[in-house]
Amino acid sequence: MALIVQKYGGTSVGSVERIQNVAKRVARASKKGNGLVVVVSAMSGETDRLVEYANELSTEPPEREMDLLMSSGERVSAALLSITLNGMGVPAESFTGRQIGMITDAVHMKARIRKITGERLRRTLGEGKIAVVAGFQGVDEKTGNVTTLGRGGSDTSAMAIAVALKADMCEIYTDVDGVYTTDPNIAPNARRIDAISFDEMLEMASLGAKVLQTRSVEFGKKYNMPIYVKSSFTDGEGTLVTEELKEMEDVLVSAVAYDRNQAKITLSHLPDKPGIAAQVFSLVAENGINVDMIIQNTSEKGFTNISFTVPKNETKLTIKTLKPFVGDIGAKGVTADEKISKVSIIGVGMRSHTGVAAKAFTALADASINIKMISTSEIKVSCVISVDEVDRAVRILHDTFNLALPPKKRAVKKKK
Amino acid sequence: MALIVQKYGGTSVGSVERIQNVAKRVARASKKGNGLVVVVSAMSGETDRLVEYANELSTEPPEREMDLLMSSGERVSAALLSITLNGMGVPAESFTGRQIGMITDAVHMKARIRKITGERLRRTLGEGKIAVVAGFQGVDEKTGNVTTLGRGGSDTSAMAIAVALKADMCEIYTDVDGVYTTDPNIAPNARRIDAISFDEMLEMASLGAKVLQTRSVEFGKKYNMPIYVKSSFTDGEGTLVTEELKEMEDVLVSAVAYDRNQAKITLSHLPDKPGIAAQVFSLVAENGINVDMIIQNTSEKGFTNISFTVPKNETKLTIKTLKPFVGDIGAKGVTADEKISKVSIIGVGMRSHTGVAAKAFTALADASINIKMISTSEIKVSCVISVDEVDRAVRILHDTFNLALPPKKRAVKKKK
Repeated sequence: MALIVQKYGGTSVGSVERIQNVAKRVARASKKGNGLVVVVSAMSGETDRLVEYANELSTEPPEREMDLLMSSGERVSAALLSITLNGMGVPAESFTGRQIGMITDAVHMKARIRKITGERLRRTLGEGKIAVVAGFQGVDEKTGNVTTLGRGGSDTSAMAIAVALKADMCEIYTDVDGVYTTDPNIAPNARRIDAISFDEMLEMASLGAKVLQTRSVEFGKKYNMPIYVKSSFTDGEGTLVTEELKEMEDVLVSAVAYDRNQAKITLSHLPDKPGIAAQVFSLVAENGINVDMIIQNTSEKGFTNISFTVPKNETKLTIKTLKPFVGDIGAKGVTADEKISKVSIIGVGMRSHTGVAAKAFTALADASINIKMISTSEIKVSCVISVDEVDRAVRILHDTFNLALPPKKRAVKKKK
Repeated sequence: MALIVQKYGGTSVGSVERIQNVAKRVARASKKGNGLVVVVSAMSGETDRLVEYANELSTEPPEREMDLLMSSGERVSAALLSITLNGMGVPAESFTGRQIGMITDAVHMKARIRKITGERLRRTLGEGKIAVVAGFQGVDEKTGNVTTLGRGGSDTSAMAIAVALKADMCEIYTDVDGVYTTDPNIAPNARRIDAISFDEMLEMASLGAKVLQTRSVEFGKKYNMPIYVKSSFTDGEGTLVTEELKEMEDVLVSAVAYDRNQAKITLSHLPDKPGIAAQVFSLVAENGINVDMIIQNTSEKGFTNISFTVPKNETKLTIKTLKPFVGDIGAKGVTADEKISKVSIIGVGMRSHTGVAAKAFTALADASINIKMISTSEIKVSCVISVDEVDRAVRILHDTFNLALPPKKRAVKKKK
């Protein structure tokens, strides 16, 4: 008997009809003889409604109180799904985060899971019942305060439960039917990926974020818990996120990702001496700014330029942070370019195949797309280009690596 | 420093504006230097909305799941009120039933409170903060399951907390400004009662039910915890429900109550032998029927009639229950009259003054109102009359005992 953890998001349980639909799916999976834990989010719109109330009532709602407020939506969904299952003759019991022993730290609104005691889950499964769990929430053991896990918290709940119970798989049901080779809105010939490695999925954050939270994928990788992403509205297949499989290496590129939400910061004419970069990025980090790509170039003798990218909404803070510093060390200045985007190709095949980056640069050059920054990792090549050219670049890269074809058809032989 | 428990009902916290209004009241009470625990119900309509969902999803929702579902509304109100208070600069913390240690038995949807550990409440008060508590809910200590306290559960929560913390008073805020000498819709000259004894309030269930749950009054009486019922929408005075005060005895009648929801059941021509009544009422009790007034008369030699009243919606069940029995013991039959009502006068003054009942009967007789049944207690006289005459009877009795006048003006000297 397999043990499966299923997670249904807010849109999947967004109405009475949709809860009935989910109950049917759960019942079907249960009839196959699987042990089932079902984690649910709040009905879509519910949490927003509560947050709106809070914002109308206070400009600075205390986070402890917000957690008590926001944790109620998931409890409602869990109870309603359990009620529906029982009504269909499928024995089920609903549980809060506290009841399943979801112990977190005391950081409200973005608590981290410490452990899951899970006794009640095991007992419920042992009685042949389905356990329906309110996602997104836990409890601080020391104070007994309710905590929430932050964005995508229900995914995190599901993954943590799957690991704690040593489940065979964690299925994440959502409103899209999986992970695509790129955004189908940009490249209509994008295809759903059947299986992708944890590492690739992590590099695809910008594509995957809509489908799967980075935190869940990291968790999956750490504990080798396969994640199956699937639509709760259709009966088709989804995407399996899993440890790296041998055949994955035969494909040069698995997906093309992009990120429009980037700005390029440039510090020009810095004195070229040891420790300058360290000073810059310490300062930036202290202010909680998330740096992505970094490039350093020596421009003329004794001077250097540093460029890096940050999320667009952190541009102002970055400039404000660096301005005094720039004056102090006698640099020319700090400038920001918000009209940029990042385009990336991702694939574990890059590790064993050469020439992938060159092929991408050539394709972009042939299309007269100027590359402003380059950064590479073992399984990724990212280029910063003008924001006006991002759609075109995505389509070109998608076609260059034949991503519209099934992986088997574009598999190549290894040549190290 | 006084310690006060305040309870605000669903309509009092029914919108963002109303929550702000409640917060202002709480802040004002706090500024007087009082220690404050504030118990809240779910925003009006919230619980109904959830129950409706459940009923759409199942014809027989399990009670354990219903409790998890229904307990969420109070948590939302508590968090929102606490957020509002903090936003106003008034330190507050919100708590669930479990967090304050509200331990109940395991009877879902109508759990009884076993004890309140209350450590967190004491600590919070000790820190000079207001404790805002989600009413209506507790936790079954053995299983950790969420329980709810049934109808009027938030009142019960408030009273139990007041007793556990040895508070000075429990204030129940609602949408009416107190308890009246009778229903103002029937007698427009009805007046708000300033102070009434627990016993009188219990006898007034039919009037008081809209304002105060019987269970809370019983609790108040048992632990001598004064209850102040007050409107959360106006600034006027309310009604104090308290232990019996000396001056209360000087008033013959405190209020006139009525109950239209009664049916009269008659068993006629029963053999007049010992144990017959016991058999009848054992049978009725076994079927969960709530009997109110009972009258037994001997009609002719060797035979007797028994009449009693039950809630109208239990008429059919009563007839069904007694029909076979009536045949067995050779009675003439069992009949029901649903066109009746009960009118009552209530007052602790009756204990020390004679002639009150006679005065009431005379007043009704003078108005040609026929009395079908009479039942009396130490502080109450109830008459069953035709349902068509109930409004007139209420007005007549209200006027007969001068209830439109302030109690002092109608006080009489004791003559035993």
